[in-house]
Amino acid sequence: MSTPRLVEVRQNVLKQNDILARGLRQRFADAGVLVVSMVSTPGAGKTALLEYTLTRMRSDGLRVAALGGDLATENDARRLARSEARVKQITTGTVCHLDAEMVGRALHDWTLNDLDLLFIENVGNLVCPSSYDLGERLRFVLMSVTEGEDKPLKYPTIFNTADVALMTKLDIAEACEFDREAAKRNIQAVRPGMPILELSVKSGQGIEDYLKFLASHLRQEVAV
Amino acid sequence: MSTPRLVEVRQNVLKQNDILARGLRQRFADAGVLVVSMVSTPGAGKTALLEYTLTRMRSDGLRVAALGGDLATENDARRLARSEARVKQITTGTVCHLDAEMVGRALHDWTLNDLDLLFIENVGNLVCPSSYDLGERLRFVLMSVTEGEDKPLKYPTIFNTADVALMTKLDIAEACEFDREAAKRNIQAVRPGMPILELSVKSGQGIEDYLKFLASHLRQEVAV
Repeated sequence: MSTPRLVEVRQNVLKQNDILARGLRQRFADAGVLVVSMVSTPGAGKTALLEYTLTRMRSDGLRVAALGGDLATENDARRLARSEARVKQITTGTVCHLDAEMVGRALHDWTLNDLDLLFIENVGNLVCPSSYDLGERLRFVLMSVTEGEDKPLKYPTIFNTADVALMTKLDIAEACEFDREAAKRNIQAVRPGMPILELSVKSGQGIEDYLKFLASHLRQEVAV
Repeated sequence: MSTPRLVEVRQNVLKQNDILARGLRQRFADAGVLVVSMVSTPGAGKTALLEYTLTRMRSDGLRVAALGGDLATENDARRLARSEARVKQITTGTVCHLDAEMVGRALHDWTLNDLDLLFIENVGNLVCPSSYDLGERLRFVLMSVTEGEDKPLKYPTIFNTADVALMTKLDIAEACEFDREAAKRNIQAVRPGMPILELSVKSGQGIEDYLKFLASHLRQEVAV
């Protein structure tokens, strides 16, 4: 196996990605837009949460938009477009993550100054997206109560590269016999001090705290 | 981005993997062992199903064993070892999939003739494992009712490289408002004719059919 060569080439790609991500981060800061990315397994509820967030924030008069990454289909973009926010799908083909170049390309015809907040929904994958900086200010890792309490221990890298953990689908925690305290301990073991927000889009539990958390970061962005 | 070079190197790695996988497949056939791999998102229930399967098959007098892939921790191996079957963990570090070389290395001190059935549990990831042949006879893709009905459409490659779809956690399908028929249509749209087994380890629904399905393939393997 020519693995050492693959590792070397991959390191060059990551270095290139970091340079592009730094450029994006500067653009976002100059435009005063707060950029938040979401990573998780497929089916942890990224799109449902994002659709709700876009709808709520628009009704509060905020200028919000989203980029969504998927291997195939425009399903998510269609779901998100119901919020009437500006939405663009990035279809990656067989690529298992978004990178800074894809994000930059998707935004080439957008005027970032028109936005308060931009969400980037990554491809559903708990491994590969961890290596790719997208220039975001905040990275949310979603973990649904259906996935088991041990996921932070088994996928430590993604938790280490994220800023906030969102525990989703709280409404079915009991049906799944999910031990919330054990899950929180596992998150803290991997990334001590990481903020954890527990919520359910379906029941509304924890949603106001989550929106307040976003609003506080939005104020910080404007204050910069 | 030096992406074309990355693609070229990756193709070489895949070619090498295919050669090693062919060698493994021949070894498995010579030893008369049925090799079944499992792929899915993290938390779809691979380990729970596997622990149950190993325990049941051992009590039926079958000689079963398992290899489990994870980025970190020996948790799965510990869970699977409760079945008293032979189990080995492959810890991949930051690598998002198993490959044929890892499988070959893990088996170097095993006598395959001592086995009727070997399971390989891949890293939880619906993207990258699709490219790596592990020499298995059957590849199961697990999809839990918590993940949403559209996953086959959004991750078509993994469904295309699998032989059987297992719809897991059937006991909470209703709590998740999961539309089983829509999910089945989506699987068939991506991979027409693919066998689909619906089951729940917790409630026992569909488990006997699943075990019968495995037994029928085991007989074919012995008959070869």
